[in-house]
This record gives sequence, structure tokens and C-alpha cells, in this order.
Amino acid sequence: MPEGWRRVVVESVTPEVDGGRTVVKRIRGDRMVVEADVFADGHDVVAAELRFLRPGQGDWESVPMEPVGNDRFRAELTLDAMGQYTYVPVGWCDTFATWREDLHKRRLAGHDLTADLAAGALLLTEAARRAGGRDRTRLHGWAAAMLRGDFEGQALADAPELAAAMARYPDRSQEGAYPVALRVLAERPRARCGAWYEVFPRSWTREPGRHGTLLSLAERLPYIADMGFDVLYLTPIHPIGATGRKGPGNTITAGPDDPGSPWAIGGGAGGHTAIHPELGSRDDFRALMRRAGELGLEVAMDFALQCSPDHPYVAQHPEWFRHRPDGTIRCAENPPKRYEDIYPLDFACAGWEALWTELRAVLLHWIGEGVRIFRVDNPHTKPFAFWEWLIAEARAACPDVVFLAEAFTRPKVMRRLAKAGFSQSYTYFAWRNGSQELAAHMTELLRGESAEYMRPNLWPNTPDILTGYLQTGGRPAFAARLVLAATLAASYGVYGPAFELCEAEAAAPGSEEYLDSEKYQLRVWDLSAPGLQPLITRVNRIRRDHACLQVNTGLAFHPTGNDRLLAYTRRSPEAGELLLVVVNLNPFGAEQGWVELPLGELGIPPEEPYQMHDLLSDARYIWQGPGGYVALDPRVMPAHIFRVRPRLRRERDFDYYG
Amino acid sequence: MPEGWRRVVVESVTPEVDGGRTVVKRIRGDRMVVEADVFADGHDVVAAELRFLRPGQGDWESVPMEPVGNDRFRAELTLDAMGQYTYVPVGWCDTFATWREDLHKRRLAGHDLTADLAAGALLLTEAARRAGGRDRTRLHGWAAAMLRGDFEGQALADAPELAAAMARYPDRSQEGAYPVALRVLAERPRARCGAWYEVFPRSWTREPGRHGTLLSLAERLPYIADMGFDVLYLTPIHPIGATGRKGPGNTITAGPDDPGSPWAIGGGAGGHTAIHPELGSRDDFRALMRRAGELGLEVAMDFALQCSPDHPYVAQHPEWFRHRPDGTIRCAENPPKRYEDIYPLDFACAGWEALWTELRAVLLHWIGEGVRIFRVDNPHTKPFAFWEWLIAEARAACPDVVFLAEAFTRPKVMRRLAKAGFSQSYTYFAWRNGSQELAAHMTELLRGESAEYMRPNLWPNTPDILTGYLQTGGRPAFAARLVLAATLAASYGVYGPAFELCEAEAAAPGSEEYLDSEKYQLRVWDLSAPGLQPLITRVNRIRRDHACLQVNTGLAFHPTGNDRLLAYTRRSPEAGELLLVVVNLNPFGAEQGWVELPLGELGIPPEEPYQMHDLLSDARYIWQGPGGYVALDPRVMPAHIFRVRPRLRRERDFDYYG
Repeated sequence: MPEGWRRVVVESVTPEVDGGRTVVKRIRGDRMVVEADVFADGHDVVAAELRFLRPGQGDWESVPMEPVGNDRFRAELTLDAMGQYTYVPVGWCDTFATWREDLHKRRLAGHDLTADLAAGALLLTEAARRAGGRDRTRLHGWAAAMLRGDFEGQALADAPELAAAMARYPDRSQEGAYPVALRVLAERPRARCGAWYEVFPRSWTREPGRHGTLLSLAERLPYIADMGFDVLYLTPIHPIGATGRKGPGNTITAGPDDPGSPWAIGGGAGGHTAIHPELGSRDDFRALMRRAGELGLEVAMDFALQCSPDHPYVAQHPEWFRHRPDGTIRCAENPPKRYEDIYPLDFACAGWEALWTELRAVLLHWIGEGVRIFRVDNPHTKPFAFWEWLIAEARAACPDVVFLAEAFTRPKVMRRLAKAGFSQSYTYFAWRNGSQELAAHMTELLRGESAEYMRPNLWPNTPDILTGYLQTGGRPAFAARLVLAATLAASYGVYGPAFELCEAEAAAPGSEEYLDSEKYQLRVWDLSAPGLQPLITRVNRIRRDHACLQVNTGLAFHPTGNDRLLAYTRRSPEAGELLLVVVNLNPFGAEQGWVELPLGELGIPPEEPYQMHDLLSDARYIWQGPGGYVALDPRVMPAHIFRVRPRLRRERDFDYYG
Repeated sequence: MPEGWRRVVVESVTPEVDGGRTVVKRIRGDRMVVEADVFADGHDVVAAELRFLRPGQGDWESVPMEPVGNDRFRAELTLDAMGQYTYVPVGWCDTFATWREDLHKRRLAGHDLTADLAAGALLLTEAARRAGGRDRTRLHGWAAAMLRGDFEGQALADAPELAAAMARYPDRSQEGAYPVALRVLAERPRARCGAWYEVFPRSWTREPGRHGTLLSLAERLPYIADMGFDVLYLTPIHPIGATGRKGPGNTITAGPDDPGSPWAIGGGAGGHTAIHPELGSRDDFRALMRRAGELGLEVAMDFALQCSPDHPYVAQHPEWFRHRPDGTIRCAENPPKRYEDIYPLDFACAGWEALWTELRAVLLHWIGEGVRIFRVDNPHTKPFAFWEWLIAEARAACPDVVFLAEAFTRPKVMRRLAKAGFSQSYTYFAWRNGSQELAAHMTELLRGESAEYMRPNLWPNTPDILTGYLQTGGRPAFAARLVLAATLAASYGVYGPAFELCEAEAAAPGSEEYLDSEKYQLRVWDLSAPGLQPLITRVNRIRRDHACLQVNTGLAFHPTGNDRLLAYTRRSPEAGELLLVVVNLNPFGAEQGWVELPLGELGIPPEEPYQMHDLLSDARYIWQGPGGYVALDPRVMPAHIFRVRPRLRRERDFDYYG
């Protein structure tokens, strides 16, 4: 038999993903809105609260849930700590409120209230039993007054001080709780927001032909920091194998001076915890970390779980690899492609527990070196259970660690990685160039259910991805993609200096590989060449100045009457910010259109003019009515980032354009 | 550490409600479509199956799930038994299919396949270990052939007989199952479909002023059966209390001859297991049950868990009722309304276990008498946990019992009762009179998530509900509501003879109570009066002849250009049926409009004429193109029920209008 007295039901809780099996994600400091249906049989008034456990705490706390109509209740929980919270909505019959409501109806109907007041006095007496100290005395006193049944007793029923006292000692005997303990992970702000810059450290040298080092990179960090980036992402810095090493352009035979792919990890100098000797020493790494910190840059490390044939694991733990029937180890492949310089690890091998334990040690090693951000290479080729376990272990050791999943694969696989714990994910953004597909992509990412646990990081280019749009569109294409990436979501990144120098030559027609790719050879970049550095600096400044660009909420697309002109607003009512971004997606010619704005939704008074301040050009325009005309010549600038300034203070018109 | 080798993930299963806590409902014989996302890391080919337990069985069975794209898999499970099934989708890496796919790519790329064929031979050898008998021998033979690596070995890889043998012995070591065992209840067809007729047995007499009996009702059953009803629903037949008895028109003082409300249950002659002496004996009840059965009518009993002050429980178990502080028992009330003739039971009282046990005995008593359908009065004023327990107990005793919830209350409370196990529910249908609100109501009921567990039963009237629409609209209003109720959902009911005789006089202006309501006085009906009997007979005949009206799927609304003209199709592609129903919602005048039909969706060839056969008037029309003109004069008939007959067999035009 069930517990028959549990009359209150709690259901349909939001946020909840996968019946509570998936942990929802938020950022420390966020106010999370939790809603639930809470009701009982009959017409009893129901009260509800949200119970929660702070990270690492064993005592439940609670915040009240307020009714918002149709049996729905809502609470806001401020996540002021970092880590995993547990939350459970709970409801109970509010016998006192029910009694008071019925009394009111009976009074209006002219009933004799003697018995009702006696029943009320009983409720007060029961509450007094649950109360202590002064409240107990007061409740007993009120109960006596109510029993007298005179006018005073009736007036008492509505007295706010009585309601307040009764609310402190509710009868929870018929309480009902949601049957699942839900979980939300509060990460640090960087898990959601950041401007990333990806480098091959070996290219950061001033001397052509000379292998760059961690120290030569450290020297040039101001170039990156001055553009306003937040995260410096290093491609792998570990020793590179010699066996099967790839030559320039991914050829299968490398010359003696060819450096090989940094993703062919492991050699005589060590494996995943070692540093490639030509890049420098552990001390040099620490110096780079220090210098980056001084400049406000966080270092993100590449976490690529694969081995060159020369990796120490191959000799020490051959059981961790996949073997052919003849006993040789299989190289990585994605038929018909073969990667002769890489052996994949077999995460489901018989010795998987030792392997997983070792890989956790690798991760903890770099956390010990101060690394707090990991860009994980191809996580979708390793078991989801591995990531779920590893990321939980890492967070237990260090709650502010951030993981970016580099998985360009099927949508459900990408979402599952986010569910397994990754803080962020690459997306298909690089290949979304039309206005409708961009709007659809971002709407799915930021407004779909996956927004509860997956955060996008938008990259116009990577060392593997030089899109056809960038190959053919020239500088206007790079500028347009920069503005899109930097303003459509809170995290974005570029692979530089290829990006700001508008490097656009592909290895072959139809290929997205770079010609003379840094993956296989040393490159020297002329950082003084005129590129997009000023625009990047401006855009990153705008991102830092506007809270609405640091979150993934408040995005809305607007019609322009021109498919090549994409318009969207980013809005933060809390911060009093409204931006309108308009991007000409056609890198080859000027486009114009009429941007339609839903003034009411955006909080702009419909009958008054408002100022459009272009934060890129600093030009200011006055619009009035539901939209305005926009023309963008990509040879000048393919985008506007307007700060919209409606007239808010009629009495102070003089600083109306402030 | 997790089980690292479990590489396959199963998620997003449909149907699933409340994370699997709510049991989904279907009908015995239904083919339930189950879908799930099933995938693994990497690019392995994945296979899936739906495991299920038949009702009361302990051995899992399975049906294969087929991929339908985007990592989604689908199975159809035919529910051929009655009762609760358990189902769990399961997936695993299909190593053989993955190997074969890779081999194919490598062959196209011109790779040397020796090692691959050896690996394939190993897979075959492993499968042979799992196989027995002839399959083992064959697999070993094929492995040897493959090892030879010649053309024969390669051809073998694609041989269907090898694939079939390998599919019989998959490697399930990396299998992953959905983490929740989901449940579906297969009920008997009457749980979904039926035409109900509600009666007050005491009114079914030929002698005015004389109390009708179960036997006098039995005599007149052919009148009901001939109209084509399936279910005869009896208002309560138990002894009626004398204390607090209501007089005609719900007055608080009853005269000595006033019979009282049948819902004031219990008196000197007994309680919920007794029969009101004036209605007859237990043998008379059995005779009524027999007679109904002969006529194809099932008897539904009213299950109203409340007591008159004279109910035996009041003296025997005063602890089952709510008491005032002065010790008296509270009568039922919904302030400011008071029901002096009724004491509600307190389902959460200290003695709740004994109370629940007793009420289960009452239910089982009537099940023992052969009753299989219960219309439950006001279930929303009793705890949800009680119903969940009671209905489960009843189903365990008798799997073909059907429960209709009479809860006209807030939507979430009604849905929760359905989740607790009720087979059917009354809805707000009676108050939905406009075309848009009717379409919205039915779309929510039949297309929303609640359709997985809640089935509607549409009532144009009840003894408590004489809507303003019926009060003012006269016979055309009754006819229109009949057609709507009978064709919008699989179950509907009327309270008769008030309905077919178009009884429309309210107790007072603004009231939905009947004047001279049968609830409080004896009535005699003139069943020979000209009413809607012929129309009801015709409509129920159409329902029995058309499978598409016996299910709650296949409903679509269509534009008519006239808000007072509602048009919808009911379609069963399996049964090859398509009906178009058009109803004039305005009882006061003729309406006309152009019904637009999406020919493609409905399976009608767009360029050919099709026949519209009005099953109500037997008239036939030929339409061509996406719709047709309809005019309906409510004084003649407010509705069409067209059978749409597209030309299906070009070679047999002579019976094209068949």
C-alpha cells in the first residue's frame, strides 16, 4: 500500500533533461529559474518550496516557490557556489490558507462561523505545538481569541502577522516531493564566455626556418592579448613521434627536418606528460603560463588521447592498443583514410581500468601545472562513459576546470558528449553561411532543449577547417565571420595568425586543408602585415563592454527583406543593454535591406525616435518606428554592431544620446 | 569506475511520459511504435532491439529495431495480450557490419585486404564460438575460406547467408540498455471506444409516479440497444439516506415521498454493496446484467465514494470521516455550497488503511457481480495515490476492468488521474462550442503528450450539465453536439432520455441544472415522443461501420472560410477509410463555406474527381480539386458525415462509386 496521506503531487519540473539523468549546466552567479506543477486532490491551497543541496554540503536548504497560475510554481535559485547542486521541488497542503479561504467564502455566504473559527483555533493550537518560544505563546493567545468567536476572532483570521506566524510552522505531514533529485552544475564564467586564440607554438618565432619555442611564444603574447583574447589555446606541446611521421602537406614520407604533426604524440622524450624538447622545458612552460597570466590570458591545452608508434605506452602497454590478427598494432583510420603516425588507444580493451587510470593521471598532471582549460581532441571516438568518469574526477580535484569538446560529428553524439560533462562544444557554425541556416543553427543551439547542458563555441576557422566561404570571399568574408562568431554566442575562437591575416589558400580544390598547413611544417607569420587585428580588437572590446554578449540568452533574429543580410538583437534587460547586429553575408557586393524590429518586445517606446550607435564605425543614426534601412558595402565593413539607445528619460533630453 | 566497455548509448525513447514513471496506455491488438536514439562513440555500425516482457511473464522477448536515420531506431510491438508490458530498447556495436563496411571502403580505395580478411575470419570464429550445431560448422568453414584471402573470401564478405548467420550470434559484450524500464498498459477495446447512455433507473417506468425498478429498466433496454449504444451507465443504485435528504430542485427539505439523490449513498438497507430496495434485489440486478448482455449492452456502474449520514460506515467507522471540533461530522461542501445529505470520506485519516481496504472490497464485490466498467464520481477529491493503488488492485483481479474519471476540474489534476490509471476521462467538450476552441481542445487531447495516457469520453450533456448552447439552440444544437461528440473521439456519451428528447429547460437562468432534475425527483419520459432517436441510431451505425471512428488517431481539421462551419477528417489508412465531417455550429441559421482539403496528405489523387457520400442523408456528390462547397441548414440537418471515395481502380470505373 502506498503512503496514503501523501496528497501532494509534484511533476513536470523544468529544467530537467533525460528524466534527471543529465546534469543541467549553469554558471556560478546565475539565477536559475525552476518551475514545477504542484497540486493536491480536492481544492486545498497548496504551498511549495525548492529544496536544494549546495555543492559538497549535506544539509538541505530551501527557497519558497511562488504560484504563477494553472498549478505551476516557480522559484529562483541563485547559484553562488561552484560545483554540483541538487534540487527537488516539494509541496504540501497549506491547511491554514485553505481554512482562511473557505472561511472567507462562508462569511460572504452569511454562514454561521462558530464551528469554523473553532476549527481555525485548532489549527493554531497544532501550529503552536510545532512552534517554540514567543511564537508558541502568541499562537496559543490567538487560538483563544478565535475560540471566543467574536468580531476580533474573525478579524484575526486575516491578520498578516498570524499568516506569517502560521507560515513558519506548516503542517508537512502530507508533503509530496518530486521523485527525482535533479542536478545542476555551476561552472565558472569562462565555461560559457571567452574569446579563444589557437596557436602552433612552434610557429611563433621571429627567425624563419627556426623552430619556435614556448619562450619565443611567451615573448609575443602581447600581440594576442592586445587584440583582447581571453584564452590562448596551444596545439599539442608533447614530443612528436618519428615512426610514420608525416611530411609537408600530409605526405606519408617526412624529410629529416620535417617536424611532424603535433597530434602524433609521444617519442623518445616521453609521452603525454612530457614537453617536446624543441619547444622547451617544463620551466619554460611555467614561464609561458606566468606570462599569459600577467597579460590576462588563460592557457588552454590540447588533450589528444592518441599515441605515435614511438609513444612509451606502445612498449609498456601494448594491451592498450588494437591489434591485427598478425599481432601488429592498428594505426588510426577512417576508411579509406589512414593515419600511419597515430595509434588509437582501445578504451574498451581488457586492460581498460589501468588505461583510464593512467589517462586520469595525465590530466591531473597538467591540472597540477595550473592548466584549467582543456580542448579535447576527437572525444567522440572514445566511450561516453570514459568522459563522464574522467571529467567528474577532474572536477572533483579542481572544480574550475573547463572542457571544450572538439567533435564535428552527428548531432546526437555531440549532444551526448555535452551530457557527459563537457563545458562547451564546437558546432557546425563554420559551415553555416546563409541567413536562414545561421538563424536555424543558432536557434537550435541556444533555444532548443540542448541549451540546458550544451554551450557552443563558434569557430570561423581551425587548422583543419578553411571553409569555401573563406577561401573565396577574401577579407570581407573573414570580417563577416568574425562579427558573427563573436556576437552570436558567448564563446568563439579563431585559429591565428591565419585568421587575422586572412590566409585563404587551400591545399587543393575542394579541400578544407590549408596549403602549407602548420600541422606538418614550420611556418613564420608576418604579424606586422595589415590584417584584421584592429577589427578583432574592436569586436573583443565590444564583447567585454557588453554583458549581453557574455551569455547565450537574449538572441532574436529579425527580418531584413534580404536573404544576404542577417540581422539579430542581443538583449539583456537586467543590464539594460540592447544590441542590433547586421551582417552582410555576401562578401562580393553591397547589400541593403529594411530591418524590422519588434519594438514592443525589445522595450523600445514605439512613438519615439531612438539612437543607433554603430560601435564598429562609431557612427550614430536616429531611427523611428519599427525598423530602419541598412546598407553594407563589404569593401568598407560588412557589419554594423549597433548599440540601441531608446529615449528613457524624457526630462533629461540633453543627454538623450548618452 | 563505470563499466567502461558499455559503449552504446540509448536515449530519447518514445513513448515515454514523466521519465517512465507514468504508464503509457494502448489497446490490446495495437501496434505500438517505439523509437529511440541508439549510438556509440566512433563510427561503428550499431544494431538495436526492443526487449519486452509480456504481462505476467518473466522471460524477456525482443523485436528488432530498424534504423530510420539520424541515429534513430524504430520497432513495432504488437500488444496481443491484455495487461501491462515492460519495454526497454537495447543497442550494441555490430562488429561484423562495421567490419564489412570498412572492408568495402578499403576495397574501393585499392588497399591490400589480407589483414582485413584475417580480422573478418576472426570475427567469424568468435561468432562460431557463440553458435551451435550447423551454424558453428558453417561459420568455421567460412572463416577458413576468408583466411585464404582469395576472391572467394572477398565475395563471402557480402554474402547474405553469412550476414544472416552473423546476425544470429552478435557480440553483445558492449551492449547498452536504456536505463529505465518503460511500461505500457494494453486495455481492452472498450477502454478506448464506446457509445455510452446514462440513465436514472428509477425513471424507467411506464407508470407515472411509480418508482422504476431494475426490472422495469431491463424491460425497456431494447429502446437503448436499438439506438446502437454500447454501454448502459447506471447512476448509483444503492440505498439512499434519509437524513439531510434533498427535495425536488435541490431544496434542503424533502417531503416524505421525495426519493432523494442517488449520490447520498447508504441507509438502513445498507451501503455501497447494497441495492436500493425500491429498485429491486440482487437477483433483479443480475437479471438486468443478463438482459443487457443479450442486447450487446455493457453495464457501467457509478462508483461514488461518499456516504449519507445514514450509511452504516458512519456508525461503524466514525474515524473515516472528518470531524468538527465539537465532534460532529462535517458534511461535504465546496464553500459556499453545502451538501447536507453527504459526508465525504477522509482518505488520509488515521485509519486510512482500513478504509482503503474496505473500499477495495466494495469494488471487488461489484466486479464479482460481473460489472467491468466503473464511472467514478469526483475522483479528484480523493488522493491520487488511492486511485493508483485501487485501480492496480482491480486490474490485478480482473484485467478487463475499465474506469471513467468524472473530474471536471483543472487540467493538470485531470491528467494526473489518467496517469493514476483511469482508462478514460470526461473533458471540457461540453463547453467548447466555437470552431477554434473545439479544434484546439481536440488537438490538445488527441495530439498532445497526454494522448499517450489519457483518453477522452465526450459528453454533450450530463445530469449536471445542461449547457447554454443546448438550452438555447433547440433540436439543431442537440443534433450538432451529437455528431461532434460521436465523431471527434472514439468514446462519447449522452444522458438520456433527456438528450434524445432535447430536454432543454434549466432550473434557473444562468444555471446548468435541469428543471425538475432527475437527481432529486422521479421523472417519467415519453419515449415515443419524436426526438433524435433516428439520428442517434444512424450515427452509432456509422461509428460501428468505420474503424477510423473507433480510434483517437487520424483526426485533422480543415479550413472552411466560415467560423461557424467546422470541418474535419477522420482517417484510417490501414482500414482504407476517409471520412469528412462538416458541422454547422450555428443552430439558428444556415451556414455555407468552402472546405479546403489537403489532397496529398489525405491520399486523394489531385487531378481526379472523388465521390462524397453523405452517410447521414445518403446523398452523393462529386468533388474535384482541393475541396468543395458545403451549405448546411440546421432545420434540415446541421451536419454531413461524408465517406470520401477517391478513384482507386482506374481499370474498373464501373464500380468507382462503390
